[in-house]
Amino acid sequence: MNSPTLARIFILRIGHRVFRDSRVTTHVCLTARALGAEGVIIADQEDKVVESTIRDVTNRFGGPFEVQSAEIQDADADLLVIVGSEKMPGEIFRIADWNISVTNQPMSEVAALAIFLDWFRQHSEFDREFSKAQVQIVPSKSGKEIQQLPR
Amino acid sequence: MNSPTLARIFILRIGHRVFRDSRVTTHVCLTARALGAEGVIIADQEDKVVESTIRDVTNRFGGPFEVQSAEIQDADADLLVIVGSEKMPGEIFRIADWNISVTNQPMSEVAALAIFLDWFRQHSEFDREFSKAQVQIVPSKSGKEIQQLPR
Repeated sequence: MNSPTLARIFILRIGHRVFRDSRVTTHVCLTARALGAEGVIIADQEDKVVESTIRDVTNRFGGPFEVQSAEIQDADADLLVIVGSEKMPGEIFRIADWNISVTNQPMSEVAALAIFLDWFRQHSEFDREFSKAQVQIVPSKSGKEIQQLPR
Repeated sequence: MNSPTLARIFILRIGHRVFRDSRVTTHVCLTARALGAEGVIIADQEDKVVESTIRDVTNRFGGPFEVQSAEIQDADADLLVIVGSEKMPGEIFRIADWNISVTNQPMSEVAALAIFLDWFRQHSEFDREFSKAQVQIVPSKSGKEIQQLPR
């Protein structure tokens, strides 16, 4: 495996239900992208809304980052992080190398994924460069400032 | 203010829309509770579903933790963390002491809150004790194990 800061990480989202989970799965994707994963695979269910929302973000703010739903293609990953929606099927615990719980309290999988990636990446996500971005967010004291980038 | 690891932190959730945001706001509340905040205040909108979901979690897994919606009561806080749903009104940036962005990429507010609390608390959330819990989650290699606690 590459070192933690360079490892190619994909997220496998299981138990996703179209409509009901679309917004939370969108949060999973944004978190994965911002914190240094290569992409998200939504198992079993096709969700064109999530795919197009995240494709739009990647087109504007840069990539590479990919979302696949329903049809799982090859993912060249060093590490596959599985996050469930509701209850995780028992066999996942048996096939996983690590069963990680972020605190031993009921928790948001978005928050758990964020903390896992931040720690695993050793905070290197803050240095990540995105390529082919059309716009970028510039640090600002008084609001959210979006700057067009030269083509 | 108390030291970061002891500071009483409340989250102010603004721009919440009932139904549309209820699940994401529930994730905000679970994250706040697990990572050491005292409670969440949902501004302007009453949302009984979020309130009762989180009250049930607190009854079972312990507290103290409170969710207030619509009617803001006194909150004895050292630090108020404001998280928006959609766009944050401009005046919030002017009244806030700190304007924090977790990465300069489009981001989930659940993930951003998680990373902020984890860093601000200096990871002390993992030592937090919850009182009056009926059940607890016990670390387990092969699944999620919930144990009844003696009354």
